[in-house]
Amino acid sequence: MEQPTVQLAYALDTFYFLISGALVMWMAAGFAMLEAGLVRAKNTAEILTKNVALFSIACIMYMLMGYGIMYPGDDFAGGWLPHFDFSFMFGGDHEVAEVLASDGETYYSLMADFFFQVVFVATAMSIVSGAVAERMKLWAFLAFAVIMTGFIYPVQGYWKWGGGWLDAIGFNDFAGSGLVHLCGASAALAGVLLLGARKGKYGKDGSINAIPGSNLPLATLGTFILWLGWFGFNGGSELKISDIGEANAVAAVFVNTNMAAAGGLVLALITARIMFGKADLTMALNGALAGLVAITAEPLTPIPIAATLIGGVGGVIVVYAIVTMDKLRVDDPVGAISVHGVVGMWGLIAVPLTNSEASFVAQFIGLFSILAWVFASSLLVWFLIKLAMGLRVSEEEEYEGVDIGECGLEAYPEFVKAGK
Amino acid sequence: MEQPTVQLAYALDTFYFLISGALVMWMAAGFAMLEAGLVRAKNTAEILTKNVALFSIACIMYMLMGYGIMYPGDDFAGGWLPHFDFSFMFGGDHEVAEVLASDGETYYSLMADFFFQVVFVATAMSIVSGAVAERMKLWAFLAFAVIMTGFIYPVQGYWKWGGGWLDAIGFNDFAGSGLVHLCGASAALAGVLLLGARKGKYGKDGSINAIPGSNLPLATLGTFILWLGWFGFNGGSELKISDIGEANAVAAVFVNTNMAAAGGLVLALITARIMFGKADLTMALNGALAGLVAITAEPLTPIPIAATLIGGVGGVIVVYAIVTMDKLRVDDPVGAISVHGVVGMWGLIAVPLTNSEASFVAQFIGLFSILAWVFASSLLVWFLIKLAMGLRVSEEEEYEGVDIGECGLEAYPEFVKAGK
Amino acid sequence: MEQPTVQLAYALDTFYFLISGALVMWMAAGFAMLEAGLVRAKNTAEILTKNVALFSIACIMYMLMGYGIMYPGDDFAGGWLPHFDFSFMFGGDHEVAEVLASDGETYYSLMADFFFQVVFVATAMSIVSGAVAERMKLWAFLAFAVIMTGFIYPVQGYWKWGGGWLDAIGFNDFAGSGLVHLCGASAALAGVLLLGARKGKYGKDGSINAIPGSNLPLATLGTFILWLGWFGFNGGSELKISDIGEANAVAAVFVNTNMAAAGGLVLALITARIMFGKADLTMALNGALAGLVAITAEPLTPIPIAATLIGGVGGVIVVYAIVTMDKLRVDDPVGAISVHGVVGMWGLIAVPLTNSEASFVAQFIGLFSILAWVFASSLLVWFLIKLAMGLRVSEEEEYEGVDIGECGLEAYPEFVKAGK
Repeated sequence: MEQPTVQLAYALDTFYFLISGALVMWMAAGFAMLEAGLVRAKNTAEILTKNVALFSIACIMYMLMGYGIMYPGDDFAGGWLPHFDFSFMFGGDHEVAEVLASDGETYYSLMADFFFQVVFVATAMSIVSGAVAERMKLWAFLAFAVIMTGFIYPVQGYWKWGGGWLDAIGFNDFAGSGLVHLCGASAALAGVLLLGARKGKYGKDGSINAIPGSNLPLATLGTFILWLGWFGFNGGSELKISDIGEANAVAAVFVNTNMAAAGGLVLALITARIMFGKADLTMALNGALAGLVAITAEPLTPIPIAATLIGGVGGVIVVYAIVTMDKLRVDDPVGAISVHGVVGMWGLIAVPLTNSEASFVAQFIGLFSILAWVFASSLLVWFLIKLAMGLRVSEEEEYEGVDIGECGLEAYPEFVKAGK
Repeated sequence: MEQPTVQLAYALDTFYFLISGALVMWMAAGFAMLEAGLVRAKNTAEILTKNVALFSIACIMYMLMGYGIMYPGDDFAGGWLPHFDFSFMFGGDHEVAEVLASDGETYYSLMADFFFQVVFVATAMSIVSGAVAERMKLWAFLAFAVIMTGFIYPVQGYWKWGGGWLDAIGFNDFAGSGLVHLCGASAALAGVLLLGARKGKYGKDGSINAIPGSNLPLATLGTFILWLGWFGFNGGSELKISDIGEANAVAAVFVNTNMAAAGGLVLALITARIMFGKADLTMALNGALAGLVAITAEPLTPIPIAATLIGGVGGVIVVYAIVTMDKLRVDDPVGAISVHGVVGMWGLIAVPLTNSEASFVAQFIGLFSILAWVFASSLLVWFLIKLAMGLRVSEEEEYEGVDIGECGLEAYPEFVKAGK
Repeated sequence: MEQPTVQLAYALDTFYFLISGALVMWMAAGFAMLEAGLVRAKNTAEILTKNVALFSIACIMYMLMGYGIMYPGDDFAGGWLPHFDFSFMFGGDHEVAEVLASDGETYYSLMADFFFQVVFVATAMSIVSGAVAERMKLWAFLAFAVIMTGFIYPVQGYWKWGGGWLDAIGFNDFAGSGLVHLCGASAALAGVLLLGARKGKYGKDGSINAIPGSNLPLATLGTFILWLGWFGFNGGSELKISDIGEANAVAAVFVNTNMAAAGGLVLALITARIMFGKADLTMALNGALAGLVAITAEPLTPIPIAATLIGGVGGVIVVYAIVTMDKLRVDDPVGAISVHGVVGMWGLIAVPLTNSEASFVAQFIGLFSILAWVFASSLLVWFLIKLAMGLRVSEEEEYEGVDIGECGLEAYPEFVKAGK
C-alpha cells in the first residue's frame, strides 16, 4: 500500500479532475440554453433535442472508440495515424494506477481522466449544432455527431494531447482553442457550406436580414453557464493540483480565464456600441465567449492584465467576424464559427506572446493541420450524409418551424407568437 | 492532535461531502425547472412555490427529527421501529470526531454528513410535487411534505442506510433507486390515486388528451441540472475519497452515472421515434432521468458499457411506463411515477447483474418493503389531509389556473397565452 | 521544497478557495436571472446587459486597483485611509508563498485569494442593478460600477477584511452581511433617491401600483442559483479547510447557511399568507434571500436551530421592509434594498446573539460606518454622473421599454405581450 501522502495526492488530484469534468459537463447545458435563446421560437425544441442527444452520443462514441484513438499510449508517440483500441468500454486497463505503484509518482484515476476528456468532445460537438441550426435535419445532424465524436475529433486530439506529431513539433494548446474550439468550428463551417443559409436571411438584392434570438434571458444564462464551466475546462487542463506549484498554476488559470472573459465582454460591448450605436447584448455575450476561447490556448503564462487584453482582442475580433461572415453569406445563427473558429485561431496565435517556449511556426502548423483535417473530413462526412438522407428539411418545414416537423411538439405551445 | 495525514484525509473527505451535497441541493432547482417547464403556464408559479417550499420544509423537518430517526446509531442496528432523537437541531453530539481520535481511522464532519443527507430527503419530496401538479392544493401538499420528510422517508432510510433490518438482510441500494426514488414515487402514487386526474385529461369516451408542457427550454434546463447534480448524488454516496481505492471508486461512479444517463436518453429517443414517429424531446429528457435513476442503486460495479445498457433499458422502460400510466388513467403530468418509481424498481433489480454480493431475493424484499411502507403510510396521511382540508382545488380554480388562486400572481403576466 | 503534508494542505486550501470562488461567480448568474424575472419584459435585455457588464467591470477594476486598496498588507493595519497599490495586474508579489516557506504555516495561492475576493465585489454591485432597474441609463450605471468596484467597496472592505480600523475595534462580519450586502444596498439607496420612482408606480392620489415581474421561473431559478452560490460565499469565507477543526467549521457554515435560507423562505411565505391571503412566490424567494443575508455575518457559531431562526426573522423582516419601502415611495423593483440592506443590518446585529466574542457596540459602529461611507460617497458619485450625462432615460424610452432604447433589441421579440 502506498504512503498516506501519495494516497492523498492521488485522491485530491482525482477529485479535482472529477469536479473539473462536472463543470465542463455543465457547459453542455450552457450551449443548449445559448442556442435555444438565439434561435427562433419555432425551432427551439429541435435545437434542445440536438443538444441533449449530441451530448449523449458523444459520451457513448467516445467510450466505444474515441478515447482509445485519442490516447493510444507511449508506443504511438509522435505519430499521426489513428490506432484503434476498444478496451475502455470494458473498464480499460488500470495501467495508470500501476505506474504509480512502481515509481512513487502521483497520478489520478483513469476513470476520472476519461470523465474529464469525454466532456471535451461533447463541447466540440456542441459548437456545430448552433451553426447549422434552424434548417438541418435532426437525424442527419446526429449521424454526423457519431462520426465526429467517435473519429474526427479523437484523431486530431491524439496528434497533440495523445502525444502525436503535433505534440512532438512543439505545438501548444493548453485546453483547446484549437483542438476543441477551432475543431468544432471547422466541422460547423463544412456543414454550413453544404447546407446553405436559412430562407429569408439573405435577399436577392444583397440585403442581410437580422433574425433576432427569441429568448435573450436563456442566451444570457447559457453564457454564464459556459463562463462557469470554463473554470473546469481550463482549470482542469493543468491535470494536477496536489503540490504548491501546481496549485498556484491552477489558481492562475482560474484568474486569467475570468479576466479574459471580462475583457472580451467589455470590449465587444464597446465595439458594438461604436459600430451599431447600441449596447448590443448578444454581441456582449459573444464577446465573453470570445475572451474565453482566446485564453484557452494559454491561460497559464499571462499576467492578469495580459489575459484581460488577450480576451479583449478576442472580443473585438468576434464583432468584426460576425459582421464579415454575414457579408460572406455564411449563415451561422449563433455566431459559433466566429466565436470558436476565428477567435480560436487568435488564441493559438497569441500563445507565443506570453509563453516563451512556444513558437509561431508550430502554432501555425497546428492551426492549419487541425483546420485542414477537420474541415476536409467533415465535408466528406456531411456530403455522404447528404447523399444518404439529405441534410436539409423541406422548405415548408423550415417555414413552419422544425419543432413540429422533427419533434412533433412546440417549445412554447401556449404562448402567442408574432410574425408567423 | 491528529497526525497531519489524518487531518488532511478528514478535511478532504469533508470537502468532498460538502461539494457533493451542494450538487444534490442544486437538484432542487432541477426539479423546479423541470416541473415548471412541463406544466401549463397557468400553473407554473404554484409549482415553483411548491418546489421552493418543499425544499425548505424538508431541511427544517429533517433537522428537527428526520436525521435523528434515520441514523439512531449502533444500538439500533438491524431494527425496523423508528427511534426519536431530536439532538441534531442543537448541533448533535460530536461522536464521529471522537471515534476518529480513538482508533485513528478517518472520518468526516458530522455536519457535512447532515448536509449531504438533508438534500436527499428533499429530492424524494421533489418527486411528489410533479405527479400531483396542476390540481392539488398548495397547503395540503406542504402539510404532506412535513410528514413525509420528517417521518415517512427517514423510517425507511433507517432500515437500510441507518443500519436497520434491510441492511442486515443484505439489501443493496448504493445511492437510493429505492430509498429515494421509489420512495418518492410511492408517495406520489398514493396522492394521485386519492386526487384523481386533471380535468380534461381523460375523456368519457376513453380518449387520452395530451397536455403539453408550456416551456421546454425550462424542462431541458431542469434535466441538465439534475444530470449535473446526480454526480453529487451518486458520487458522494461512496462516502469517502481520501485514498487510492476510494478515489478510483468515486471516479467509476461518475463515469457510470454519466454513461447511464447517455444510454437512457439515446434509447428513449429511439424508442419514441419508433412509437410516435418523432424525436420527442420530453421523452428524451425522461430517458436521461430514467438512466440516472436506473444506475443509482449500483453505480460502482458495472463496467462502462454495462452502465450504458442499464441506463438504456431504463430509457426504454420509461417510454412504455408513461404510455401505460395513461392507459391506466393514472394522471402524472411530468411522468414522475414512471421515471422514479417504475425505473427505480428496475434499478434495484439490476443490482445483482453486476454486483456479485447482491441477491435478487434481498432486492425484491427491499423493493416491496419500501413500496408497501411508503405507499400505505402516505395513503393514510393524504387521506387525513383530505379529511382535514381537502386535497383538490375547486373546478373553477383548476380551470383558471392555480397560480391566481393559490399564489395571487401569474408566472408570465405579460405574455399573451393561447387557448385559455 | 516543503514537506508533502504542507504541500497537500496548500493545494487543498487553494482548491477549496477556487471552488468557493466559482460558486460565488455563479451568483452573478443568479442576480441576472432574478432581476430579469422581476422586471417587465420590455426592460429585460437591458437588465441582462447591465448584469453581464457590471460583473466584467468589477473584475477589471478590482484587478486594476480594488484588490490593492482592500489588502494593503500589515503596514496599514488599523487604518482607515485607502492606500493605492496597482501591482496585482502584473501578477502581484508572491509574498504569501514566501511566508509559507519561512514559518512552515500553510497558506493558499495569492491568485486563488484574488479570485475569491473579486467575485465578492461583483456581488455587491449586482445588488445595485436591481434597485435602479427599468429607468436608469445603461452607461450611467456602468460609470457608477467603475467607481463602486474600483474604490467605494474596496475602501470599506479594507476597514475590516484588509485589517483596517473596523477590524481593530472588534467588528464582526464573517462573510459580509455588512461589507457586501449592506454596502450594495446603501449604494442602491443613494441611486434610487436621486433617480426617483418608475412612471406609474405611485399615483398622485397616494395609491401604490404593483408592477409584477414578467417571468417568475427565471426569478426562481435566480434564487436557487444564489442559494447554491452562497455555500461558496459563506463556506469559502472560513478561508481554510485543511485540518479537522477547519473542516468542521466549514461544514457547520454550510449547514447553517442552508438552514437560514430555509427558515427565511418558510417564514416569509407564512407572513405573506397572513398579510395578503396568498402564498406569494416572490415574497418566498425574497425570504430565502433574506435568510441567506441574515446568516452571512455569522454563519459559524449558531447551532442549526438558531441559524434557522436567524434566517426566519430575516424572512419576516423582509416582507415588512418591502411593504414599508413602498409606503415611503422608495421604488425598488426587485426589493434589493430590503433584502440586502434592511436584513443585512439584522444580520450584523444578530452576531452577538450567538458569538460571545462580538459586541453590539462594535456591530453598530460597523453598521453605521459602512452605511455612512457607502451612502455618502455613492450619492456624490451618482450626483456627478447625473450632472455629466444624466441618470434617467427619457419618458418615452421608459414607456417603450429600455431594451429598444439602450440595447437596440428585445428580450422576447416573437412573443406577443399584453398591456403595452
